[in-house]
Amino acid sequence: MGVAKDVVVFSGSAHEALADEICKHLRVKRSGVKISRFSNDCLQAQLLANVRQRDVYIIQPLVPPTQEHLMELLLMIQAARGASAGQISAVMPHFAYARSDKKDASRISLGGRLVADLLVTAGADRVLTMALHAPQVHGFFSVPVDHLTALGVIADYYRSRDLTNHVVVSPDLGNAKEATQLSRLLNLPVAAGSKVRLGDDKVVVDSIVGDVRGMHAIVLDDEIATGGSILEIVNRLADYGAVSASVATTHGLFTGKAVEKLTNCDGISEIVATNTVPAPQNFPKLTSLSVASLFAEAIHRIHGGKSVSKLFNNVDPQYAPPPPVTEGLF
Amino acid sequence: MGVAKDVVVFSGSAHEALADEICKHLRVKRSGVKISRFSNDCLQAQLLANVRQRDVYIIQPLVPPTQEHLMELLLMIQAARGASAGQISAVMPHFAYARSDKKDASRISLGGRLVADLLVTAGADRVLTMALHAPQVHGFFSVPVDHLTALGVIADYYRSRDLTNHVVVSPDLGNAKEATQLSRLLNLPVAAGSKVRLGDDKVVVDSIVGDVRGMHAIVLDDEIATGGSILEIVNRLADYGAVSASVATTHGLFTGKAVEKLTNCDGISEIVATNTVPAPQNFPKLTSLSVASLFAEAIHRIHGGKSVSKLFNNVDPQYAPPPPVTEGLF
Amino acid sequence: MGVAKDVVVFSGSAHEALADEICKHLRVKRSGVKISRFSNDCLQAQLLANVRQRDVYIIQPLVPPTQEHLMELLLMIQAARGASAGQISAVMPHFAYARSDKKDASRISLGGRLVADLLVTAGADRVLTMALHAPQVHGFFSVPVDHLTALGVIADYYRSRDLTNHVVVSPDLGNAKEATQLSRLLNLPVAAGSKVRLGDDKVVVDSIVGDVRGMHAIVLDDEIATGGSILEIVNRLADYGAVSASVATTHGLFTGKAVEKLTNCDGISEIVATNTVPAPQNFPKLTSLSVASLFAEAIHRIHGGKSVSKLFNNVDPQYAPPPPVTEGLF
Amino acid sequence: MGVAKDVVVFSGSAHEALADEICKHLRVKRSGVKISRFSNDCLQAQLLANVRQRDVYIIQPLVPPTQEHLMELLLMIQAARGASAGQISAVMPHFAYARSDKKDASRISLGGRLVADLLVTAGADRVLTMALHAPQVHGFFSVPVDHLTALGVIADYYRSRDLTNHVVVSPDLGNAKEATQLSRLLNLPVAAGSKVRLGDDKVVVDSIVGDVRGMHAIVLDDEIATGGSILEIVNRLADYGAVSASVATTHGLFTGKAVEKLTNCDGISEIVATNTVPAPQNFPKLTSLSVASLFAEAIHRIHGGKSVSKLFNNVDPQYAPPPPVTEGLF
Amino acid sequence: MGVAKDVVVFSGSAHEALADEICKHLRVKRSGVKISRFSNDCLQAQLLANVRQRDVYIIQPLVPPTQEHLMELLLMIQAARGASAGQISAVMPHFAYARSDKKDASRISLGGRLVADLLVTAGADRVLTMALHAPQVHGFFSVPVDHLTALGVIADYYRSRDLTNHVVVSPDLGNAKEATQLSRLLNLPVAAGSKVRLGDDKVVVDSIVGDVRGMHAIVLDDEIATGGSILEIVNRLADYGAVSASVATTHGLFTGKAVEKLTNCDGISEIVATNTVPAPQNFPKLTSLSVASLFAEAIHRIHGGKSVSKLFNNVDPQYAPPPPVTEGLF
Amino acid sequence: MGVAKDVVVFSGSAHEALADEICKHLRVKRSGVKISRFSNDCLQAQLLANVRQRDVYIIQPLVPPTQEHLMELLLMIQAARGASAGQISAVMPHFAYARSDKKDASRISLGGRLVADLLVTAGADRVLTMALHAPQVHGFFSVPVDHLTALGVIADYYRSRDLTNHVVVSPDLGNAKEATQLSRLLNLPVAAGSKVRLGDDKVVVDSIVGDVRGMHAIVLDDEIATGGSILEIVNRLADYGAVSASVATTHGLFTGKAVEKLTNCDGISEIVATNTVPAPQNFPKLTSLSVASLFAEAIHRIHGGKSVSKLFNNVDPQYAPPPPVTEGLF
Repeated sequence: MGVAKDVVVFSGSAHEALADEICKHLRVKRSGVKISRFSNDCLQAQLLANVRQRDVYIIQPLVPPTQEHLMELLLMIQAARGASAGQISAVMPHFAYARSDKKDASRISLGGRLVADLLVTAGADRVLTMALHAPQVHGFFSVPVDHLTALGVIADYYRSRDLTNHVVVSPDLGNAKEATQLSRLLNLPVAAGSKVRLGDDKVVVDSIVGDVRGMHAIVLDDEIATGGSILEIVNRLADYGAVSASVATTHGLFTGKAVEKLTNCDGISEIVATNTVPAPQNFPKLTSLSVASLFAEAIHRIHGGKSVSKLFNNVDPQYAPPPPVTEGLF
Repeated sequence: MGVAKDVVVFSGSAHEALADEICKHLRVKRSGVKISRFSNDCLQAQLLANVRQRDVYIIQPLVPPTQEHLMELLLMIQAARGASAGQISAVMPHFAYARSDKKDASRISLGGRLVADLLVTAGADRVLTMALHAPQVHGFFSVPVDHLTALGVIADYYRSRDLTNHVVVSPDLGNAKEATQLSRLLNLPVAAGSKVRLGDDKVVVDSIVGDVRGMHAIVLDDEIATGGSILEIVNRLADYGAVSASVATTHGLFTGKAVEKLTNCDGISEIVATNTVPAPQNFPKLTSLSVASLFAEAIHRIHGGKSVSKLFNNVDPQYAPPPPVTEGLF
Repeated sequence: MGVAKDVVVFSGSAHEALADEICKHLRVKRSGVKISRFSNDCLQAQLLANVRQRDVYIIQPLVPPTQEHLMELLLMIQAARGASAGQISAVMPHFAYARSDKKDASRISLGGRLVADLLVTAGADRVLTMALHAPQVHGFFSVPVDHLTALGVIADYYRSRDLTNHVVVSPDLGNAKEATQLSRLLNLPVAAGSKVRLGDDKVVVDSIVGDVRGMHAIVLDDEIATGGSILEIVNRLADYGAVSASVATTHGLFTGKAVEKLTNCDGISEIVATNTVPAPQNFPKLTSLSVASLFAEAIHRIHGGKSVSKLFNNVDPQYAPPPPVTEGLF
Repeated sequence: MGVAKDVVVFSGSAHEALADEICKHLRVKRSGVKISRFSNDCLQAQLLANVRQRDVYIIQPLVPPTQEHLMELLLMIQAARGASAGQISAVMPHFAYARSDKKDASRISLGGRLVADLLVTAGADRVLTMALHAPQVHGFFSVPVDHLTALGVIADYYRSRDLTNHVVVSPDLGNAKEATQLSRLLNLPVAAGSKVRLGDDKVVVDSIVGDVRGMHAIVLDDEIATGGSILEIVNRLADYGAVSASVATTHGLFTGKAVEKLTNCDGISEIVATNTVPAPQNFPKLTSLSVASLFAEAIHRIHGGKSVSKLFNNVDPQYAPPPPVTEGLF
Repeated sequence: MGVAKDVVVFSGSAHEALADEICKHLRVKRSGVKISRFSNDCLQAQLLANVRQRDVYIIQPLVPPTQEHLMELLLMIQAARGASAGQISAVMPHFAYARSDKKDASRISLGGRLVADLLVTAGADRVLTMALHAPQVHGFFSVPVDHLTALGVIADYYRSRDLTNHVVVSPDLGNAKEATQLSRLLNLPVAAGSKVRLGDDKVVVDSIVGDVRGMHAIVLDDEIATGGSILEIVNRLADYGAVSASVATTHGLFTGKAVEKLTNCDGISEIVATNTVPAPQNFPKLTSLSVASLFAEAIHRIHGGKSVSKLFNNVDPQYAPPPPVTEGLF
Repeated sequence: MGVAKDVVVFSGSAHEALADEICKHLRVKRSGVKISRFSNDCLQAQLLANVRQRDVYIIQPLVPPTQEHLMELLLMIQAARGASAGQISAVMPHFAYARSDKKDASRISLGGRLVADLLVTAGADRVLTMALHAPQVHGFFSVPVDHLTALGVIADYYRSRDLTNHVVVSPDLGNAKEATQLSRLLNLPVAAGSKVRLGDDKVVVDSIVGDVRGMHAIVLDDEIATGGSILEIVNRLADYGAVSASVATTHGLFTGKAVEKLTNCDGISEIVATNTVPAPQNFPKLTSLSVASLFAEAIHRIHGGKSVSKLFNNVDPQYAPPPPVTEGLF
């Protein structure tokens, strides 16, 4: 270990464009990985650059096909560890299994904790991620987690416009923390949908708590998948007299018929999502915000032994996410 | 292991009255523990009953002095393990460190996860607890957790009265899940306080989201310590036109000047708390509800290899907590 | 733990028919599992029967889609552990990742060891499997493994016919152990293909070591996926003067165009495979042999604390696999 | 990790004066820690300096209130680990739980091993301590331990005087190793008290083994808490004809009425203790010796990858503790 | 696990006679083990009886050749674990590596802790041992340890004679605890040798602390290997006027020329040792005391879930070892 | 860790000559170790050079007496870890226990996995070894393994001669991979012995698969211990008309009467072995090839953070082992 350790960045097949963008900010060349699929459908990963004693970052958001991407990530981590990597950081811009964070029925799995444990078993020394579904999921990991937020990037986007008569809306009264934070950043009031369970599987938003009449709503959710609950809240906002709805999210998965449904919903004026996951094609309503420089800066600081919390300007990240990132930082 | 394993129940010094009540329901005699304090202030635990191959339950809510009670619990667990106990269940009716469940500032400890790991290191095979501050804390433990709720007991209490013009109120919009659940159980609307941070340390409730004017509020919080945030919400409820406030909680710690302050607050008509922690003396406003039979039933089922989720009547405990417990169940 | 522990058997979605057949032999009812797929493609498992303190067996061969079935298995195991199961056995009639058993290139993953570790992390206490690609893979697991062989079942099948002028053939000289064993069981000579590597990825059988001229070949391989290497050896056998080829395997995956290619190969008179994995439809050349009674007997013995090696008649299983299993054993 | 790692030193609230003195020797500024106590009596630690990839030393002797200080230490270690510290050394000048080092009764806890395990669970990579109650306690830790001795500092103190007619006395014949070592360092004879147990809890010194008549006794014990056993041995020494008693100890806790009792005991001419723990106020008989430079030198050597055993001059520390430490060593 | 678990007892090759005697007391048949030595000197263990779900005891004192016997024990434990044993107890009547219990020089190994960890790694769930060199060694194990003492058996032997003018002598003032205990059991005074180090390796007893003139000495040491330190103390006793010396020990290894030297030493009237290790042939001065019934009773109690501390009559074993064991206890 | 870490190389007593040769290539001085044997036959290791934060390599092939050398290695590793070594590599040129790699009988130990686990428990961070009996044994280790091959060195030796009419022969059809590789390197055909089991313990080679008549055989085995199976195959080769036999092996242990038997066998023209293990005296037929430079190069690369796979020229080591090593590489 008498040599300075270089950064080596790999990417699985989940989101190579984001990895390339992060590498560009870092001014390093992305190293290759060969993912093989055997005829019995088993996967194998081969790292195509030396990692011995090096500081390795493996970028892979857990997007569909989620199990394939998870297994790729686990195999890459194990390969790095078996090849004597110095430190291995699993960079998961979207940690999808974070949604499986509680036991709300008998004898169910707790996928968030399971996957956290699997990553450590494979050999991860650290996790770098963004916008976990609940902040407590941080505690599922037995290794250090650097947990970034996209709220600053999203707030920057809205700051540039006239916010008169706007209100931030959380689709779920029980999980309104992020919306509350965004409302503080933008100096806006906050409202929330109240959900009720109909039968075993169906949950609907039956009312809006807070005042939205005549307001422009900024609906914030951490993840949009099929878009079902977004449509639900947007419809309810209309019922309660809201004028328009701009929808913002960190993780814009848009699975199933989400693109079609959201495109056809007249109540939604625009959709804003970051690039933690690949954006769908042919989705004119979508504005994509990049978090690549945020991840690059975090990697740069981790590698250099500098404080990552400095990214948040020494302020409690719950209440004051990072200010705009200036270009050309390093 | 050719013999049937008996239940052995121990209690630390935190709440012997609850342990005795649970034992009475279980129809077992509580076994003794000798806690010694050496002259250098170190603690030592000696279990006064044979635990070899037995099913051991150690009851200790983490109430002040919290560190003392935690260390007692860890030492009792280690003593049981060193004495070849079969299975060791840490029974913590109140897991105080659950509140330290997220990293909301740079380089802070995550006490909830730490204590979960310490318990497993000491030798706990299972945890039995109630009303964790957030359901995700369940996932901090690497051993099975049986997580009970007091919402059923609390709902039973209110069901017996006329609930016309009542509303369930959560002091915190960001954590309104429990209040939402209670409102469903009682078929009542829900409202919530919206908090704003003033300066570094001070958080105040600056508005009420939802309609409370002319209503009787049932304010629900999982834990009441100094009572500061309860007074805050009760005052704001008055500002917004609420008629009265009944305050309900699972864990009624009432530390500092809580008893005095709550007694003197005219807006509070009554306070309801369970006995997961010892109740203060001289507090006429307080009604104490017992959860001893719930814990006894859970221990009985764990020991007998029966489903604990049956305690919840096969219904999702998030939305339909247990119905009234009938006496003489076993 | 004062009660006798019952067997509880679950199955993932990989091969429910085999699970049902095993349960029938065991005379137990298969317990239900609810596998849910969230809109972000994450999986969740819910066990529909009480497992507390019980002896749990979860049946799931790792067949395509392999990563989906692996994740199902891990989630079911974790759910069982979190629900306080007594002992959890992962029953994998086909452990596909066993083929990833060595580092034959720089910085590659070692999937066999990784998956072994993941299963233990999820909570598996024991593994029950059949015909691992190499016997050393047993040593990848840090928990007890009961490793069954299908050679007895396969030998039984061939014993009933006239074996004059037959020879057992291994497609690979470097891995001829199983073929050698079958030849001993059937009192036949053995031959093997010798492989040569052409370029980076292409491996061909360029010669046959041993005498096959005028003989009927019984080609034995542990797993058939695309069937490529089987066609290779069968063609070479024809070149060297073999009269016919009967192909036998434990794990008949038949992926890609295997069914079509094997059906159209005139040199192959028949194909024999066990039901460790689901058999393809419309494959008249295929004879399926059941290993369900072997697995049922193993589970019966594990649960009853009886020796599983008795299944092998106290003889070294490497050289004398089990005699025919008589019906109605328990 | 391409940067040189700096030393970062933190202190809990147990003994900030010692930490400051160590930092002064090390010529580093002590970094801040914010210890918060929540209203439910739970503690939280926040490190106020960046520790990423750095070499972190956390100074905290386990003095009363011991459980509070232990929990502070565990939380600081966990915070450092969660913030990606390079290496974390728990510096415990006094490891009080070392006295709980054996099972001398049925089903008792073994506090020394438990706390050793808790520290490793929290994230400690190394322990730096002094004068463990028994040298075997070193083996309780699964991480490297650098174990300093204060005997050299104590011997230096006595070397400056006329030692004619002096004898070193151990209060306990069964633990006379340290006294034997000091006697070798000072070229003096040794004697020891022989203890007898009266009833369950009471142990008295009933005789002196070895010759003390007409001698000046130097009574050596590793820790003095209430001072009870010191008074016992001093009284017995008087009975056996000793002329005076100078009492020396590494860890001078002086709990309860120790200061009063020792002050009033005419048989005791002086008391010598190091500053591993804070010295009591108003105790004129006490001479405090500093071990700060010894700890600073050890930290300096650990950080620099130099041998700590060089501190002991390459001689077996059991028999020849370090020579006087010269000032200005680095 | 629906069946009662039987005891299965195995023995390595270290001391089969003791194992047989223990089995006789337990009224079970000793199960066979096949230890094979390959031509490259590697060992292999095969257990010849079914252990599935059973309670397994493997008896093996660590006597010379110590490394061979240790490896046999580790292999037997691993074999039992791999064969799904219920609980595995390593029964080591003599745990030789307990003497390597402290770091008394730079960079030395700590064999006692290492071997404790190796046993757990191999799969031991519990350790049953006797007369550890220091009681703290108990804390080296991360599994439960049942620690028996032979002092009761030794005291019984001496109680039957006239003990007028007798004194118990410890060869080492620094480790006089056991001698002190025996003196209490026999109501005799105690004395001890004081050791001094000459040069690097040589340690001699240069004086006797306590009065032995005209007395019959009972010299007690936990282990006698070459007998060198026994001869040393016996010679010094003669110098100080002792009349005779009876030598007692738990572990009588008598390695090298011990038998010859002790036989030829006129100052030694008799030698008493237990059978934790095999006794040498042709050693008329030796009286062997059996501890087989003590081990059998402990195994019987462990298996039956009864308290082992009852063996010590509920009295602190440090000060009052077990009374005479009556025959036919079970 | 602000300093560059030097390499420190230690050797146990198994093969100091090889260690010295490796150190000479590395241009470092071998550091001393003091191995002590106590009178009770326990071993102790003391490292005589500072290892704090350093990169430590401990060289010890597992040759007879195997258990002694294994325990030496474990103790040296533990001593290095306890002394705060940076990274510890166990360098085992011959890992004898690799032969215990499968469970081919009921309830046997799996020595290869056990020893792999013991090394990690002692503190090994990495293993450097050569020619494991089966490549799968790599997967027994939970730490990175750098696995060298001697096939290149052996091939170099034969390349220099006329190889007309030569054939490479594997003694065992079931393990012919290495022989197949050597045949590819030398462009020669391959043949193999077919073994049959007679009775319980006796295995004989009853036929040769492949053509050897009139050929010069190069018999390759990974390890030669008693030489029994080599004599067996050489005799069978003579029966089948082979002209001569040159015997090559990586690990030439030559235990028992191997030297005598192989010397007297006229069918064997020469024996070639590497120096992974010490060569016997007085064995003129033996040619010893050195692998010291290969190990030195590997250590040099590991320490320098360079790719070890570069030693294999970027080619799959299974099919194209390293080309001749040029002298003076660093």
